[in-house]
Amino acid sequence: MDPRVRDHAETLVDWSARIEPGDDVIVDVDEGAHELAVAVVEALGERGANVEVTYGSDELSRAYLKGREDADEPFETDPAHSLALFEAADAYLRLGGGRNTMATADVDPETRREHARSRTGIREARMDTDWVSTVHPTRSLAQQAGMSIEAYREFVYGAVLRDWEALADEMDRLKRLLDAGSEVRIRIGREDRPATEDRPATEDRPTTEERPATDLTVGIENRTAVNSAASVAYDSHNLPSGEVFTAPATVAGEIHFDVPMTIDGRRVRDVHLEVADGEVVDFAAATNEDALASILETDAGARRFGELGIGMNRGIDRFTDSILFDEKMAGTVHLALGRAYDACLPDGESGNDSAVHVDLIADVTTDASIAIDGEVIQRNGTFRWEDGFEA
Amino acid sequence: MDPRVRDHAETLVDWSARIEPGDDVIVDVDEGAHELAVAVVEALGERGANVEVTYGSDELSRAYLKGREDADEPFETDPAHSLALFEAADAYLRLGGGRNTMATADVDPETRREHARSRTGIREARMDTDWVSTVHPTRSLAQQAGMSIEAYREFVYGAVLRDWEALADEMDRLKRLLDAGSEVRIRIGREDRPATEDRPATEDRPTTEERPATDLTVGIENRTAVNSAASVAYDSHNLPSGEVFTAPATVAGEIHFDVPMTIDGRRVRDVHLEVADGEVVDFAAATNEDALASILETDAGARRFGELGIGMNRGIDRFTDSILFDEKMAGTVHLALGRAYDACLPDGESGNDSAVHVDLIADVTTDASIAIDGEVIQRNGTFRWEDGFEA
Repeated sequence: MDPRVRDHAETLVDWSARIEPGDDVIVDVDEGAHELAVAVVEALGERGANVEVTYGSDELSRAYLKGREDADEPFETDPAHSLALFEAADAYLRLGGGRNTMATADVDPETRREHARSRTGIREARMDTDWVSTVHPTRSLAQQAGMSIEAYREFVYGAVLRDWEALADEMDRLKRLLDAGSEVRIRIGREDRPATEDRPATEDRPTTEERPATDLTVGIENRTAVNSAASVAYDSHNLPSGEVFTAPATVAGEIHFDVPMTIDGRRVRDVHLEVADGEVVDFAAATNEDALASILETDAGARRFGELGIGMNRGIDRFTDSILFDEKMAGTVHLALGRAYDACLPDGESGNDSAVHVDLIADVTTDASIAIDGEVIQRNGTFRWEDGFEA
Repeated sequence: MDPRVRDHAETLVDWSARIEPGDDVIVDVDEGAHELAVAVVEALGERGANVEVTYGSDELSRAYLKGREDADEPFETDPAHSLALFEAADAYLRLGGGRNTMATADVDPETRREHARSRTGIREARMDTDWVSTVHPTRSLAQQAGMSIEAYREFVYGAVLRDWEALADEMDRLKRLLDAGSEVRIRIGREDRPATEDRPATEDRPTTEERPATDLTVGIENRTAVNSAASVAYDSHNLPSGEVFTAPATVAGEIHFDVPMTIDGRRVRDVHLEVADGEVVDFAAATNEDALASILETDAGARRFGELGIGMNRGIDRFTDSILFDEKMAGTVHLALGRAYDACLPDGESGNDSAVHVDLIADVTTDASIAIDGEVIQRNGTFRWEDGFEA
């Protein structure tokens, strides 16, 4: 076995999930994640944990949902055996890594949504555990990333096997700045370029070569930033992670997201949003704009923002069409349309609510700055505490 | 997909497990049984059942148990999450079919036993469901059977895709004879051959070419035979099945089992047992006799018998080193050392108790007869209600 598989498993079990002797752990194994699962359950055995292994196969999900479509009966709410399993569990480790990222492409999205809605209680029970989601590098994910399996393995382990303690310390600097601040301003683009509204209406859709300017102001008063250091000890549930995020209180201005995103199976490029009073008032995309439109129409909360995140993982050096990695990349910021995380809000206060949470990512390594209350804390991807920062 | 995979899934879901809308079903998928699992969960979706899929991989079991050996701590009794899952389930479908039947060969048997003992409550909860065990034909099982995968698929589907209703009717005839009778006598071997005790002590171990005579009398008064028709509706939990079995009340005589059995990973051939007052008083085997000796020494019940079974599945036409198939083959009888099944006993009475249940099989197609209370009901593999029966 590649020794990095064992390192991955130990990082997951010890740093991320903080497994203790006697913990009742669910390990959910995707079709292609068998090898990682072997290393994970061995580590769990060594820690004296109790293990129930579930099989999280997209092909099985598809088959079941197709069968249910034929049955044409409503889904039962929170089946008792699944609910009992998750309610009694201390931790849930999702080992992603399938054999075909398009395995459920022919399932009616409405069937999928109804199935998800019928399992709200199970999802909540799962979220109440020390849950962590990671992926094993499979050929299918390499293909989606446009990479060979060998290069993709290098990429995944480069992102996962970090000095998480050191990164958590660095991210804490940004978290403290955000917690103390009341307004974040993101500016991207040469200042001599005209703003979108001044350009001719007949102009082609923007491309990254002729990137429209971004100038967005996000109010964060009374918000608490999460130091997402890939550990439940930091309220962080992804491995890899490496971002600091908060929940916007107010948003105004315009922003151009130049990193492509897959939304409902379709590749959406160069999303441009105009925002007033926290709400999206105009939008455009270079490809599959209707996928974006469909998200915005989901509910009232889908036109508002649930998250502002700043990527800080320098082990992630390219975009791979996977939100688990893309949004954590150092030199990027992202905003999410839809649901906010409670961890960012004052006790008892609820943030933006929506059935969706769709992240959109912008590169901030060129002609870009992030300022808090007027003070630039990052320019062109370099934080003010790093070498090479230009004030 | 091979249409027989769908037929197998539908036989399992409808005939064997009798799944109803709203049933909470656990599907346990072995490493090589993915394709059967796809067909099974689709059928379960069509029936309106709720599904939780677990991953029953021997390689993961090995890894976990190896980890626990390193931890050197006792196993917790019935971990809460696993127990809750099985207690809330209506049915459990085990889809066997691994990639290596020797995957756990290097786990200390004592670790395995301790792990099994720690999960007694979980096992009981599982046995309280409508559980059914079947296998998907994999290369590993074909190899164990000494067959190509193509030939092994033919074999498995020949055994599984029976007219179960017709076979259940035929088996009911034998069940009624056994229920009404008080003594079964099994005789095998030419009557002119000397009995074992008369042959010189220096003689080589018996082989199937020079098979020693069998003459065994099994008392079955007050016992109820199980018509094992591969359905929970018949108290039958294997697919395929096709045997009628009961629990011996008394046993005396001697018997030679000429069908090889794998006991604790070792191939044991030509087991010969002498039985007095229900207890094994002398034993021999042509190979790996010490594996048999170790079974007999397990506990007091391991020297006594828990089962007398008569195979009736004519779709099984060869031995494949798998008890799921071998003991169901028409033209065989088997006795099990160890634990008896409650279903065969009068209410409230408990039968032979032991930690083991080891089946031993004899071919009864040549020079053989089975009689109930002095009346021959099968000669040379042909029942008295079949064409060609010689009274």
